[in-house]
Amino acid sequence: MYTLLKKDKSTSARLGKLATVHGEVETPNFMPVGTIGAVKTLAPDEIKESGTQILLSNAYHLLLRPGPDIIREAGGLHDFMNWKGPILTDSGGFQIFSLAQLCKIKDDGVEFRSHIDGAKYFVTPESIVEFQMLLGSDIMMVLDECVHYPCQRDYVEQSIKLTTDWAKRSKEEFILYKQNRSCQLFGIIQGGTYLDLRRQSAGQIVDIGFDGYAIGGLSVGEPRDLMYEVLDVTVGFIPDESTHYLMGVGTVEDIFESVQRGIDIFDCVVPTRNARNGLAFTSCGKMHIRNARYKTDFTPIDEECNCTCCLNYTRSYIHHLFNINEILGLRLLSLHNVTFYAKLMKNIRQEIRVDRFLEFKSDFLGNYSKE
Amino acid sequence: MYTLLKKDKSTSARLGKLATVHGEVETPNFMPVGTIGAVKTLAPDEIKESGTQILLSNAYHLLLRPGPDIIREAGGLHDFMNWKGPILTDSGGFQIFSLAQLCKIKDDGVEFRSHIDGAKYFVTPESIVEFQMLLGSDIMMVLDECVHYPCQRDYVEQSIKLTTDWAKRSKEEFILYKQNRSCQLFGIIQGGTYLDLRRQSAGQIVDIGFDGYAIGGLSVGEPRDLMYEVLDVTVGFIPDESTHYLMGVGTVEDIFESVQRGIDIFDCVVPTRNARNGLAFTSCGKMHIRNARYKTDFTPIDEECNCTCCLNYTRSYIHHLFNINEILGLRLLSLHNVTFYAKLMKNIRQEIRVDRFLEFKSDFLGNYSKE
Repeated sequence: MYTLLKKDKSTSARLGKLATVHGEVETPNFMPVGTIGAVKTLAPDEIKESGTQILLSNAYHLLLRPGPDIIREAGGLHDFMNWKGPILTDSGGFQIFSLAQLCKIKDDGVEFRSHIDGAKYFVTPESIVEFQMLLGSDIMMVLDECVHYPCQRDYVEQSIKLTTDWAKRSKEEFILYKQNRSCQLFGIIQGGTYLDLRRQSAGQIVDIGFDGYAIGGLSVGEPRDLMYEVLDVTVGFIPDESTHYLMGVGTVEDIFESVQRGIDIFDCVVPTRNARNGLAFTSCGKMHIRNARYKTDFTPIDEECNCTCCLNYTRSYIHHLFNINEILGLRLLSLHNVTFYAKLMKNIRQEIRVDRFLEFKSDFLGNYSKE
Repeated sequence: MYTLLKKDKSTSARLGKLATVHGEVETPNFMPVGTIGAVKTLAPDEIKESGTQILLSNAYHLLLRPGPDIIREAGGLHDFMNWKGPILTDSGGFQIFSLAQLCKIKDDGVEFRSHIDGAKYFVTPESIVEFQMLLGSDIMMVLDECVHYPCQRDYVEQSIKLTTDWAKRSKEEFILYKQNRSCQLFGIIQGGTYLDLRRQSAGQIVDIGFDGYAIGGLSVGEPRDLMYEVLDVTVGFIPDESTHYLMGVGTVEDIFESVQRGIDIFDCVVPTRNARNGLAFTSCGKMHIRNARYKTDFTPIDEECNCTCCLNYTRSYIHHLFNINEILGLRLLSLHNVTFYAKLMKNIRQEIRVDRFLEFKSDFLGNYSKE
């Protein structure tokens, strides 16, 4: 379902497309995060208007609220939230191990208590695949254990064994349940920041065979250079003819560095969460709209942007909206930031196409860090 | 600028139009409240899409934030907030006496401290007219004193003298500053719930002569029947060929009762504030979307509504959005409620046009209270 269209002449950057029944995703691409069936503050038509081609949603959060019964009755997540485009769902591995309470790994799966109301849940690699089938995800992720940083080597060694075992079981369940459904299952490579364990995990996960491969457990606190080192080591193990997904990343700089190392898709709360904190991404860098200098600035957030926010409202007005805690401000900056990310990815694709990726990266980041 | 088009055959209901330089307002009509330069949660294009023809904004709030300098530099409130339609601005009389701190009436005007940061302000009837000119309001309100309910008779007697004095000064200032501007100034009739004082205030305010007349100080806690009694007594004093404005009202029931008594325009936070609390107005009555019964209800909020919310989302999804405290839920219900009010007013106008107002009122309220 992934087609490699072109490799960059001087880096590992790739141009490709990822076909799903809900539409094609041009890669490299970025997925805004619709954690619990909504991209915070935004409506699906706005997300589409932003140029976004695919959303991420979280199985863990959807399992807790609204739960499987309601989404089944709604006819799946696409219908429930009225998003017609592709959806990738995270398995919940990351959330169970970071957000849930009293998490216990058992032989079969993992027991935890909801961070919302303390209700007890037990999930298995199989049940998580089934739940993602129920959601109607276009791209499903296997259940994995995402270790913290820093993490003892012996813990990580054990953990990748578990993740590999779960990946096998996930794939078996996926094959069993897939039938005529048009959907994909991605494996997840773990291994912390131990390069040899990353190699080991990559080898094992690739051996099982998936439609795409994610690199998990990065951008969890490790130094940036170490993250790039792990990427350098790991991406080489992933087959060319599959999607390369870097989970939970990231910043504009990280996206450039990771595309350069061969990553195709990303997800991160950076554009949306920052927007709600008053931070806008612009072609000239980051802008803290609460800063008093914007009080009387009657230009748009980004002169080079054609989003609804930039076409219709001034920095002064949005500063005012944040000052009075008005929701419209959160909406406008969220829409702008999501548009900024979609446009960034579009430009990256364009520049790979014409073999100018490195020049574009250098120009963009040069302007970007000026402010 | 107000044209009376038709009187209902059997009640005092009126069909009219109110011309402003930013567009015509068909009456009876309802103004959603954009307190501080934004209708909470909504963007101007959504407000327009809802069928809303005119907004209300508050001079008091805009004086505090963002203040006159910024709005002047922005070229007025319309440009600042990107709303192209008519705007009526309240003078701040109500807010100064209910929201501001350490409020002191002096010979010239009134001193108070901001409820936001305690900063001291001094406003006069003249300065409030000037500020509304700066805002570029299509319809300005005179500074008045709005008394609480219940209120001692002797206090109300003194108060309406002040309100009348301020109204005279406001009009003088308005004439002085208006020049070629196309805008209107409305007087405000006070008098609490003392029918003779209402008559007295109405007589005095009408004598001064304004483009329209508001009835202030109602819906502030008095019994509903008493409010209707005051309306019955007061509206008769207002010239036919001027706009009749009932401030801060109201509920669906109050709108029907007041239109029947000759009111042309209304403003109230009821549709928007209730939306943010999860209360939707529908053709079948009020709906508390947080109620568990809507968890698995996959019908729209209102089958008879064509708003973006009702065309695209289910009660189940909106229930979920409220359950997870997602802003999109507030937006969707706000848009629905504002659309509901705009459509209600449109239907009321239609029914007055065909001399069926009373039948419509009876049918509508019959269905409305079923739930």
